[in-house]
Amino acid sequence: MAHEEAKILSLSAFDARRAGEVDPAIRDLVARRYRSFGGSSYLLYNEPLHVVRASGVFLYAQDGTPYLDAYNNVPSVGHCHPHVVEAMSRQAALLNTNTRYLYDIIYDYAERLLATYPAALGNVAFTCTGSESSDLALRIARSATGGQGIVVTRNAYHGNTTAVAAISPSTGADVPIGIDVRTVAPPAFGNKPTRKRIAQFAEDVAAAFADLKRHGIRPAAFICDSIFASDGIYADPPGFLVQAAGAARAAGALYVADEVQPGFGRTGSHMWGFQRHGVEPDLVILGKPMGNGLPVAGVVAKPDILAAFSKSSGYFNTFGGSPVAAATGLAVLEVIENEGLMENASRVGAYLSGGIRKLAATHGKISDVRGAGLYVGVEFRDAAGQPDPHTAQFVVNDLRRQHVLIGTSGTGHILKIRPPLCFSTDHADQMLAAMANALAA
Amino acid sequence: MAHEEAKILSLSAFDARRAGEVDPAIRDLVARRYRSFGGSSYLLYNEPLHVVRASGVFLYAQDGTPYLDAYNNVPSVGHCHPHVVEAMSRQAALLNTNTRYLYDIIYDYAERLLATYPAALGNVAFTCTGSESSDLALRIARSATGGQGIVVTRNAYHGNTTAVAAISPSTGADVPIGIDVRTVAPPAFGNKPTRKRIAQFAEDVAAAFADLKRHGIRPAAFICDSIFASDGIYADPPGFLVQAAGAARAAGALYVADEVQPGFGRTGSHMWGFQRHGVEPDLVILGKPMGNGLPVAGVVAKPDILAAFSKSSGYFNTFGGSPVAAATGLAVLEVIENEGLMENASRVGAYLSGGIRKLAATHGKISDVRGAGLYVGVEFRDAAGQPDPHTAQFVVNDLRRQHVLIGTSGTGHILKIRPPLCFSTDHADQMLAAMANALAA
Repeated sequence: MAHEEAKILSLSAFDARRAGEVDPAIRDLVARRYRSFGGSSYLLYNEPLHVVRASGVFLYAQDGTPYLDAYNNVPSVGHCHPHVVEAMSRQAALLNTNTRYLYDIIYDYAERLLATYPAALGNVAFTCTGSESSDLALRIARSATGGQGIVVTRNAYHGNTTAVAAISPSTGADVPIGIDVRTVAPPAFGNKPTRKRIAQFAEDVAAAFADLKRHGIRPAAFICDSIFASDGIYADPPGFLVQAAGAARAAGALYVADEVQPGFGRTGSHMWGFQRHGVEPDLVILGKPMGNGLPVAGVVAKPDILAAFSKSSGYFNTFGGSPVAAATGLAVLEVIENEGLMENASRVGAYLSGGIRKLAATHGKISDVRGAGLYVGVEFRDAAGQPDPHTAQFVVNDLRRQHVLIGTSGTGHILKIRPPLCFSTDHADQMLAAMANALAA
Repeated sequence: MAHEEAKILSLSAFDARRAGEVDPAIRDLVARRYRSFGGSSYLLYNEPLHVVRASGVFLYAQDGTPYLDAYNNVPSVGHCHPHVVEAMSRQAALLNTNTRYLYDIIYDYAERLLATYPAALGNVAFTCTGSESSDLALRIARSATGGQGIVVTRNAYHGNTTAVAAISPSTGADVPIGIDVRTVAPPAFGNKPTRKRIAQFAEDVAAAFADLKRHGIRPAAFICDSIFASDGIYADPPGFLVQAAGAARAAGALYVADEVQPGFGRTGSHMWGFQRHGVEPDLVILGKPMGNGLPVAGVVAKPDILAAFSKSSGYFNTFGGSPVAAATGLAVLEVIENEGLMENASRVGAYLSGGIRKLAATHGKISDVRGAGLYVGVEFRDAAGQPDPHTAQFVVNDLRRQHVLIGTSGTGHILKIRPPLCFSTDHADQMLAAMANALAA
């Protein structure tokens, strides 16, 4: 864990040095955890949460207490959704092998998934995780362009492999950004985005590629999460990515959309974050919500770009696109459609954001409420206008005390709210009441 | 696909240019496949196999024909094993989240897994795939040693991320080996391994690290699959890795055991391939059979080595160590123990190898039969002693015609036989009869 990052996390994360002091009910679990895992992982919240079951938007503690989950975007259609569990279980009992054999369900799934994309994005390569997808996108982009240079945002997170950690500055200061990587400031246009600021973002991308070229590094890709989840959640105005993607292409690079965070309907208005911006990527990175908890992921590609890579290398992923992965992914798409979850994200997201804005009006420390659909960021700044991670982390831990779960983004001063997409206005009311209490405290 | 590799694969793999000529029953599936996947993946066998269900050691075609699976090491305890499917399905309906919360089953699993290791290997970090595990092992080894240099065998395969492809020469000639990577000849000691040849393997490792140092690259790790699955399957004599691991450590590198192929009891005598050699690694890479088809994988580590990495970076894997992954992995360990699968691998492996040796005695083209437990290699050479991939590939495709499934290793001239561990002597007899037919043809 990098020092700065660790400092921020420690405000909301559990401090391992306190392992002996925790509630006796979880002391044994915490001890067992550190014994087997060492220091390689961290627990959320000042008081770690021991969960035993989950359903819909609730995680349940051992004593039966429900915790409202307003944070987990992996169980995107709801924890343990029966339609998804049933599809997965049925397929697991029937057939689960790899794509070197022919079986039907993988083509059903691939076609259903690709039907949600613009026609030009006609191919998919299945993987297991968003990290594998980002890594594969790097390999494809570098192979197709013959370049190595990558541009990302300043606090980007795209995954955890060696190559992807090097394009993920948010991993922390002790993990070097690659020598063939440049970063640009995130599109924090403020409450009144001007034409000039939007143009500046594209100019930054152009300048980053120019700098790469000046160092003898040929451009390969501009990789961008259109909701800027780790940078601080910047959604508006829709369309601002058009100029940035154009700048990348003018430099000879591909534009790669990382849809791990905004994808699968979360932003409410569109299935994919890039569609909200009216821009068409060359490659798309998919992960987290794709299998509602099962490791299902992939890269969607323009066929000629994938072909350029396939000719030189080829790609086989043992578990990627297995019958169980396909059955699960297909069930997730069915639930999103059948339950109108994208429309729900739009409706409940607007309701929730509106409620938080009302709270913000009477609490000076909230400097901005922003986002799209069920991806909401709440920024805290102190009287001097400086980022205020302490208040944000206090709110996170106080909400946990009130049985509501959220997290943070950016440098720890922005609440990150992204519940399962079946979140209702009643759930939003519960959350808003808890937030009012936390802000009053 | 690299050219050489493609040439070899094309002998047994399906040729995409023949998509219009295949059996009308599968023509539509093949067309759909290429439409959605492009050229990024290949199908096994001259005649692709369309499967609809699987159980134990059999895959079933649409018309009900059973195919004896003597190839797939992922469904290691048997296709769709009811105990594993039940454990996974039960957990998926109850709770599936990530390791930033406390839940019991992950510690149960971690402890049960670590109990199969020497005491010094006391920590585990869970991932989803062998590729993720290899990539994480690289990150840990490089962080712990401060070096970058890696030594692998000449036709090694450790996975498919950017960094891991660079230590996997078998990916093909068009995917460059890393500038900080050196290769050594695999331990093909021949039928009479001499003390000199064994010492030579260790000397090669030492020389590779010396060459890295001469180029200013500090040693990080010697990474080695103790069954040498992609190099040509070299198991004997047990113990030959001791000197090689010693040479790596003398150079300041870690010794990393890739157990994706030999692990989980496959070699019959031990749970882990490195135990068969009486050597103790610093890091262990786990993958494929760990979840019997579900993406469950991990890195087992000496705690001080993992701690060195955790201090600078930390590691979080969204799906790694989820309750479903843990329940599934735990069920796999239970089946291996309850059904005595390691002992079965030893007994049936010896029976199968013995049977193939008898066939070899009357068929001049088989130059060697080798392996350990249910990992068997059968090498073909022509009269001049040159590798004979054509005969090997003919046998693979002829066995498929007789409803028996195997694959190849090395440069395509070695049959790779590694069935699910519940393979019986009756199954071995079926396979031997088919092989006798294929060799007679």
